[in-house]
Amino acid sequence: MSKKALILLSGGLDSTTTLAIAKSQNFDCYALSFDYGQKQKSELVAAKRIAKLFSVSEHRIMKISLDDIGGSALTDKAIAVPKFKLSDAIPITYVPARNTVFLSYAMAWAEVLDCQNVFIGVNALDYSGYPDCRLEYINAFENMANLATKRAVEGQKLKINVPLIKLNKAQIINQGLALGVDYSLTQTCYQADENGRACGFCDACEYRKRGFIDAKIADPTKYQ
Amino acid sequence: MSKKALILLSGGLDSTTTLAIAKSQNFDCYALSFDYGQKQKSELVAAKRIAKLFSVSEHRIMKISLDDIGGSALTDKAIAVPKFKLSDAIPITYVPARNTVFLSYAMAWAEVLDCQNVFIGVNALDYSGYPDCRLEYINAFENMANLATKRAVEGQKLKINVPLIKLNKAQIINQGLALGVDYSLTQTCYQADENGRACGFCDACEYRKRGFIDAKIADPTKYQ
Repeated sequence: MSKKALILLSGGLDSTTTLAIAKSQNFDCYALSFDYGQKQKSELVAAKRIAKLFSVSEHRIMKISLDDIGGSALTDKAIAVPKFKLSDAIPITYVPARNTVFLSYAMAWAEVLDCQNVFIGVNALDYSGYPDCRLEYINAFENMANLATKRAVEGQKLKINVPLIKLNKAQIINQGLALGVDYSLTQTCYQADENGRACGFCDACEYRKRGFIDAKIADPTKYQ
Repeated sequence: MSKKALILLSGGLDSTTTLAIAKSQNFDCYALSFDYGQKQKSELVAAKRIAKLFSVSEHRIMKISLDDIGGSALTDKAIAVPKFKLSDAIPITYVPARNTVFLSYAMAWAEVLDCQNVFIGVNALDYSGYPDCRLEYINAFENMANLATKRAVEGQKLKINVPLIKLNKAQIINQGLALGVDYSLTQTCYQADENGRACGFCDACEYRKRGFIDAKIADPTKYQ
């Protein structure tokens, strides 16, 4: 089996930890990021920094236009990113079909790379209730992918690895620290400024902050 | 249930017939095409012409870069489109994950449109052996989609309609003619010239030609 892995890398806490985990498993790592029309672009600066730090074999940033489709506070300038509020509802920061579009491109690139392992940093505990972060979704995607591609039909199955799926933020942070991740270099905020400083009040900031508190680790995040 | 339908429209024989079928079922039709890095762009001219002819409510052409990923004779200038050859192997015109990427965008736009029906003109008889044209793939995609989106989780399921799945080319042509499709306006060839004239010898041309012969209909295709 190919020891290549393709890691979806946003430059945030979760995807960076996921890359560190893939590295620790001796995979030859390829990183894929998306300039998908997100309002804040500084996460791509973080992604580049982290890809370089982890010496990935190749880092691609694909430009796609989910903002043309809209329907999310992360891509639509007319919809503000709200302050964190505990709720069971799927928030307005949900981007329609985002992980499916991302994983579809990952599938395509993995096939050309001759790579059988895709890693994605979804987790089902401390997250925002997005349906496409749940294990049952990931399993359904993997099943679909293995009916879709030439490689899979020829017997080279694709595995979607979700090493964080059952971890909370504090556990993710502890695992990353054990692997030497410097979280000051990661960026999680939905509306960081152009210098990558976090707002401190969106859902993503809130879950991240609580993670450092629960892990009893000083929060290295730069706030605005 | 919303009477909107989103149709994946390449401008070819199959997708045009699919649009005609959705129209005949009284759907309010939206058409989605992709400028995905295919070497020949005249199919997009055909798609625009057909979308206009069928008075769709909106026609979007999304620009995406599957050519950055490569691995196919349809997107990679270094790989020539071969002449038709009967074979069980998946041909070099296969584009890695193409239908999955297309359907992912369709899922995203359908969610924003409040649309529960996506139509795609795949067929499992007269085609090139692409794995992502089979019913088991489509069913797996639909299952995944209904775990992925906010709308689906809230109970509004998505249906992927494949009205051509069990038809051969002659049957597709007969169904389209019964619905008034003018096939001289469609373009199927993998390497049509800039005026939309077909090469006459690629897989796509071969299946199309045989379809007209089997249907005993004069072939209206313009050849180079």
